[in-house]
This record gives sequence, C-alpha cells and structure tokens, in this order.
Amino acid sequence: MIETPYLLFLGDAPDMLAAKVAIGIRDWRPDHAVGQLRLAGCGADLGLAEMDLRAGREAGAKTLVIGVANRGGVISAAWKDVLIEALGMGYDIASGLHNLLRDEPELVAAANEHGRALHDVRVPSVQYPIANGVKRTGKRCLAVGTDCSVGKMYTAMAMERDMVARGMKATFRATGQTGILITGGGVPLDAVIADFMAGSIEYLSPDNDADHWDLIEGQGSLFHVSYSGVTMALIHGGQPDALILCHEPTRAHMRGLPDYTPPSLETLRDTALPLAQVANPACKVVGISVNTQHMDEADARDYLEKTSKRMDLPATDPYRFGSKPLVDALAAM
Amino acid sequence: MIETPYLLFLGDAPDMLAAKVAIGIRDWRPDHAVGQLRLAGCGADLGLAEMDLRAGREAGAKTLVIGVANRGGVISAAWKDVLIEALGMGYDIASGLHNLLRDEPELVAAANEHGRALHDVRVPSVQYPIANGVKRTGKRCLAVGTDCSVGKMYTAMAMERDMVARGMKATFRATGQTGILITGGGVPLDAVIADFMAGSIEYLSPDNDADHWDLIEGQGSLFHVSYSGVTMALIHGGQPDALILCHEPTRAHMRGLPDYTPPSLETLRDTALPLAQVANPACKVVGISVNTQHMDEADARDYLEKTSKRMDLPATDPYRFGSKPLVDALAAM
Repeated sequence: MIETPYLLFLGDAPDMLAAKVAIGIRDWRPDHAVGQLRLAGCGADLGLAEMDLRAGREAGAKTLVIGVANRGGVISAAWKDVLIEALGMGYDIASGLHNLLRDEPELVAAANEHGRALHDVRVPSVQYPIANGVKRTGKRCLAVGTDCSVGKMYTAMAMERDMVARGMKATFRATGQTGILITGGGVPLDAVIADFMAGSIEYLSPDNDADHWDLIEGQGSLFHVSYSGVTMALIHGGQPDALILCHEPTRAHMRGLPDYTPPSLETLRDTALPLAQVANPACKVVGISVNTQHMDEADARDYLEKTSKRMDLPATDPYRFGSKPLVDALAAM
Repeated sequence: MIETPYLLFLGDAPDMLAAKVAIGIRDWRPDHAVGQLRLAGCGADLGLAEMDLRAGREAGAKTLVIGVANRGGVISAAWKDVLIEALGMGYDIASGLHNLLRDEPELVAAANEHGRALHDVRVPSVQYPIANGVKRTGKRCLAVGTDCSVGKMYTAMAMERDMVARGMKATFRATGQTGILITGGGVPLDAVIADFMAGSIEYLSPDNDADHWDLIEGQGSLFHVSYSGVTMALIHGGQPDALILCHEPTRAHMRGLPDYTPPSLETLRDTALPLAQVANPACKVVGISVNTQHMDEADARDYLEKTSKRMDLPATDPYRFGSKPLVDALAAM
C-alpha cells in the first residue's frame, strides 16, 4: 500500500532513541531506504546516505517516511515546510505520529494539489471488538520490557526471521507504527481506544495451527507510568504462552521519566508472569533479551552469561549475537 | 450543561448490572430522575415510577438519559425508534455509550429538526497530555476491584459525601459515564486513546491542598482481561496514596468472562499495591469495600467482620452500612 523505496526523514530528532521508526526500517528492510534527510540540530544518524529531497527523488525514493517519534507526536512548523516541499516534488508521505498528516490543512491541500497520498499508519482502520478472553489455538510469544525502547520489537523481528529460517511456523505481529511500516499490517495499539485495546490484540493474533507461533510486538512497560496500561492490554489480549524479558542495562532512569528507576529483571519477571497467567495459566518466562548496544563486546558477553546464570534462563542480545537461545526455548515448548 | 430532570431509559437491559448508569443517577441524584422507561424484555427495574415518553414529559423531564451499558455500547434499531420519538416530543438525549448519538444520521436529523441536543458524555472533550509521572501535591484515594461492577464508584461517592459532611476536603473524580452524568464533569477514560490514558488521570487530579483528597473513580479490574489496561492507567496516572480493595463475594465468575474466576482479596492486594508503588512508593492499602447486595444483613455483617480480621484492614459496605471505617482510615493518614 505504501510505495517503496523510502527517503527517511529524521527531522530534528534529539537522539537515536527518537529515530526508532527509521532505524527499524533500515535494519529490517534495508532495500526500502535510499537515504536519510536531517534538519539542523538533528542528533540522530542512521549512517545512510545523506540526501536532500531532490537527491532522494533522483535516487528513486517514492515516499518520504517520517522516521522519528516525538513526545506527543506533534508535527512542528519546521517539519511542515519540508513535508509541503516534498509533496510538491512528487513524494507520498507516510507517518506514524499521533498528530495526523490528514489533520493538517496545508498538507492536505498540498497533497491534493499534487495528487500525492498521505499515509497515517498510526490510525486504526478496523473497529476492534472488546476482548472476550476465550482461549485461542496456536502459540504466542510476547516480549515485555523493564522500560520502553529496550528492544522488544527487534527481539520479535529477529526471532521471526530465525524461526522461519529453521522451518518453524512464525508470524511477527506488529503493534506499533514501525512494525506496521515495515510489515504492511498490524494494530496501532497506542492509538486504539482504551476499551478496545485487549480486543485489538485478540483480533491481531487469531486462532492458528497448534504449532504456529505469533511473535507479538511488545509496547511500553508495566513500570513506565505513561504507557503501562498499553502493556497490560497486550499481556491480557495476547494470552502469551511464552514471555521474553527485555532489558537495557545502562539505562539510568526510565525513558522520559527522570524520577523513575528501571526495575530489575527479577521484579519484571515476578510482576509480569502472574498477570499473564490470569489470561493463560500455562504461561512461562522462557528467556531474556538484552539490548547491549551501549556495551563493548566483552562486557556484553559477560553480562549475558552472568544474567543467564542468575535468572536460570537463556539470555542473548538477538540483534548482536542472534536469537538462537530464545528460539531454542520456544522450540522446546 | 445537561438539562434536568431526567427520564431514565432502561431499554431492554438484561439485568440490573447492565443498568449501572441509571442506578447511579437514582441513588446519588434522586431529584434528577422523574421515572423509568422500559422496553419489552427489560430485566432491570429501578423501582421508579414507570413512564412512557409522554408521561415523562408531563412529569417535567427535559432529558432522556440512556441509563444502560451494552456490551460494546451499540444503539439497537429498537432503541432508535424510541430516541427519535423522544426528540420529536421535546427531549434532549444524553448517553455514555461508545456508539455515539452523533454518529447516527437519523438521530442527528431528528435533533436538528426539533432543535434538541444530543449529549455524548462518553466522548473526551479535552486533548489530554501524555503522563509525566511527576509527583503531585494533595492526596489521592483509588478504589480497585477484584472484578468490574463491584462498587468502586459507589465507594468513592459515599466516601466523598461522608468526608464533606465531616468537614474534610474531598472531591469525587469521575472516570466513567455514570459519574460524569451525575457530577457534570470528569474523564471518560474507556474512550480515551491508549497513549493518553494515564495522562488523562493526571489531568483529572491535579495539584491540590496538602490536606485535600481526590476520590478517583476506579474502572475495570487488573484481573478482567477485557479492561485491565484501563485499570493499570488509573493506578499509574492516579498516583494513589491510598487504595481501597473492592469485592463482590457472590460472583461465580468474572463479569462477562465465564472461564475466569475472580481473585481473592489477598491476590488483589498483592498485585495492585506493588504496581501502585511504582508511581507512589508511599501508597498503602487502607481498607476494604464489600458489595453485599446479594447477602442478607446477618451474612453481610459476618462476612465483613471475618474479612476485616483476616486482612487486618477496616471493611464495610459503604452503601449499606456507611463508609465511616474507610473515611477514618484516610483521616488517620
């Protein structure tokens, strides 16, 4: 539905964490990204070719993808100038921000004038049911984190890739804008109306073959007070058979919450598992996924080994060292 | 904003639990309800004067309030006939259903034709912020339940009434359509977009005097898989200093979920308190509110006494026996 390839717009993203959408596209569909476009003050850098709008078009880009997530998801005036210029040059625009492209009259006017499309992947296109809690066939794995932005999507993406390569039946189920932009489908969970959150996840992950695994993309954290309700709905709507604990060990405080300290992996396990067992009494914690991007390789391997021993669970950084220990754990269930 | 008094429309509500909105209005603002209007097959009865639309108008009713909550909140064809007739007879209509009055073209046309108002109290009228988790001044009490519809709103309403009567500073903060219809303001939490749920509760319960108590209306249950995400957002957005555990001891299964058993009060305490302490480490469980409507008085008193002893907490049915033990617990903090 969204025309590829993309030019990735990073705007004035303060840091790499804010560029999660663009990074996901680069890493999981590298063929879709011809380059990056950054504004003054941008603190994010994907290492892609630096392009302005004209260079992007010359490289074949058909869609300008807004690759950054702002706090609150607002489209600034500085951004709007670029987006209007892009429409005039023949780009479609795709965005996962709360502030919809279609709600900005200048963008709508420019898109109409130039016959271009505005894709708001954040907006639900389905009227989801209220969750009924009925047990579904097939198996489900959910990644839960000590914080937001600790690698839950990467974990599920990496596991899907490795499981399919092994001949297992596995489907990544996107619950956020990045996953939807990458895979072309899913539930934009953080834009779903509260009463229908759990039902949207039941809808996303329906009955399936007994040996099929849905790898449901996690969101937020039970310990992140801004988004914990979203996480709770995933745990109960997802009915996971397997939980993966996700962690980023160098985080000094919860993302965006300077007064909040991330919990330990033990606290995450002891909080998430009983809640998951409300919907699926057979649920187990099967492994640990550590985002080691801020550690050198020796430190990362040491941390993983010690954590695995301490928690008596397989532990890996699936992006850096592969997801094999986690996939082995699912295969053994 | 909504003109009083009301005629309470019960439709074809299957039972009294479905008529929560109407019961709340009858109990907390009896002067606002001139009577009840029931369709064939209605299993709910408020004990109010039975009236058709004409009799309601003759008794002075200005607004027809939809007093029932359907699963999914849909306006049926049978209901629509009544609502259109009501608009023709000079009623405004107020509703807290997900299915908005304003989304029904025949209702909009009839309201326009007759110059009447359609009030959808379910729809947020504010763009809520994302929660920032910053500690607020003043004190907050939140009721959490073993299930939905166990008396959380009644508990907070009763405590507010008794606290104000004692000269304490207290404000009921509505988070559902009944509370909003009764008090005229609040956050329709189950209609808020997922990412803004906790922020809407921060907005609802701002900084206040150090000795002021907000009595925040609870929603759902951490153990009800359809709505647990909403409850989680209340616990983290509310930053409660005090939790009241709410329970209905005769419930055989979770409301609407035949395969799910309600948890014990101990399990509720041990689940809700650590989650609340993420946002407010000083939070305490201070009392128990039991909905004893299906028990005779001797059984109810016996249950309360045993439960209080077992849990080492004050326990009462605030509607039947008064909220004094709970208010005493807040006054002692």
